[in-house]
Amino acid sequence: MHEFELIKKYLSKLTYKNHGSLNLNDDVFFDKSKNLVISVDTYINGIHFTNFKKPELVIKKILRSSISDLICKGVSPKYYFISGSGNKTTFTKKNLFKISKSLKEEQNRYSIYLSGGDTVFSKKLSFTITSVGFSKKIVFRNKAKINDDIYVTGNLGDSYIGLKILKKKIKLNKNLNNYFIKKYFCPDLRIDLTKKIFSFANTSIDISDGLITDLEKMINKQKFSYKLYLKDIPISKKLKKLVNLKIVKKISCISQGDDYQILFTASQSKSRIINKISKSLGIKISKIGKIYAHKHKSQIIDENNEKIPLKSKGYFHKF
Amino acid sequence: MHEFELIKKYLSKLTYKNHGSLNLNDDVFFDKSKNLVISVDTYINGIHFTNFKKPELVIKKILRSSISDLICKGVSPKYYFISGSGNKTTFTKKNLFKISKSLKEEQNRYSIYLSGGDTVFSKKLSFTITSVGFSKKIVFRNKAKINDDIYVTGNLGDSYIGLKILKKKIKLNKNLNNYFIKKYFCPDLRIDLTKKIFSFANTSIDISDGLITDLEKMINKQKFSYKLYLKDIPISKKLKKLVNLKIVKKISCISQGDDYQILFTASQSKSRIINKISKSLGIKISKIGKIYAHKHKSQIIDENNEKIPLKSKGYFHKF
Repeated sequence: MHEFELIKKYLSKLTYKNHGSLNLNDDVFFDKSKNLVISVDTYINGIHFTNFKKPELVIKKILRSSISDLICKGVSPKYYFISGSGNKTTFTKKNLFKISKSLKEEQNRYSIYLSGGDTVFSKKLSFTITSVGFSKKIVFRNKAKINDDIYVTGNLGDSYIGLKILKKKIKLNKNLNNYFIKKYFCPDLRIDLTKKIFSFANTSIDISDGLITDLEKMINKQKFSYKLYLKDIPISKKLKKLVNLKIVKKISCISQGDDYQILFTASQSKSRIINKISKSLGIKISKIGKIYAHKHKSQIIDENNEKIPLKSKGYFHKF
Repeated sequence: MHEFELIKKYLSKLTYKNHGSLNLNDDVFFDKSKNLVISVDTYINGIHFTNFKKPELVIKKILRSSISDLICKGVSPKYYFISGSGNKTTFTKKNLFKISKSLKEEQNRYSIYLSGGDTVFSKKLSFTITSVGFSKKIVFRNKAKINDDIYVTGNLGDSYIGLKILKKKIKLNKNLNNYFIKKYFCPDLRIDLTKKIFSFANTSIDISDGLITDLEKMINKQKFSYKLYLKDIPISKKLKKLVNLKIVKKISCISQGDDYQILFTASQSKSRIINKISKSLGIKISKIGKIYAHKHKSQIIDENNEKIPLKSKGYFHKF
């Protein structure tokens, strides 16, 4: 048994099931009686982020990752808490100034504010972010329907290229470097879609661990399968260029995680309204596949109509 | 400037002041418009707890420490989130079983339930606990009045002796060892007092960092001083025995922290109602001093009517 499956096994029985609350299977907690939605996530240096030489970017990444959990469920984040563990090297005056400036920018962008937190001394740098929002309803997991179309917002894979650049595993020109690194640290959250998502999505999740991993998490309690079309999975013009130049393969980039785009399913009849909303908000929304009954095996179909295996499914860390 | 003062300086300007919310000076966040109270705390192995050989006790200690923040403000905790960072050595099947069993006991004792969280791999063992409660009002900090009496619930110092035993700096017989270690890991929270506290307290805090430190935090924005009487500071019979045997000095034990008793001030006219509630709930509540205008210097008076200096003021880690 996977270690975190074990944790889930032991802790999930401690939750209070009959209170409109989600169990530990979802990324957010929803207290229906109070219209309250909460997400708690821990980010550790070297695992969830890299390169604290740029604290002003790291803090944006982890804050966006946290509020993304709410946004993808149709909930506008309202405030957040940060618990930081670090030492004198990581929490220097200069770094704190940069962090504070970045948080201010994020607060203005997403209309959220800091409500508190805690700081402790530790050799290991880490942050826990608690994000809070209010909503009468949320888009749940495990609510896909047979024949639903599968959609994703924005582009996938840019963030992964950014990480590869940061890890010096790939070298591009300065402009491209900057572009991809920015996508790694500052994913484009779809906050404008938050209020509209209830009008079409049956189920949703944000892509943090990777397209396939998160798709399977989104429908994990449902006996369904899916078919995805590689050609329809959206990537940026710049990533397309790298693919064309054979610097990377598309299939290697689109399921690596850190995209923070919204993955959702919707009935076929919602196709028109989705296109309309996509255009009016200026948000790219791509139909990338379909939900099937379980008797079918899940498939990813490449440009030559061949089934392709996906190796990297990301990692599990939620309980 | 103290490092954490620096963090406070940089982050406190990010909070939203005009929303019934507290600023970062308090231990809890209060959203008056939603009747929502939240506390977030991080606990690191070696700093906030020791001896993970007994995970079943450590988890109780940190959960009680977290909900204590709400309880001392007059708020019943309703649910909590745990983010744990650890590895295969700390999160073994055996330990998870013990942790789960302990949490279940705490849930029954305090009528709370687990709502979610996150687990990540890290060499450094730490937990962040987010506790949530609902209340129309809370007892704020910095609301003491001149001539208020200063009160504390329960006994102080037992927890500190427990820690000294765990650190092998003191050795007692088995019965005493067990008693004090239990007080360290399982402080007696005054949950029954939660609903009553609004009827008498002007301001309150829970003692986590130490009597003096927390008293000063409680009135830190008020230009007041205080006088405490050592003889009136409550200690247990067992600790009194150690003091009488000159194994420890009373003054060294009563301001070391980890007591999780409620410190509050109340007008002199509330004396009778406090005694009545104390008796009816079976909770020891001791009058230990008085609030004065700032022109007086804060004093601690010993049994011989002499002013005594307090060295250990605990540590600051909140922002």
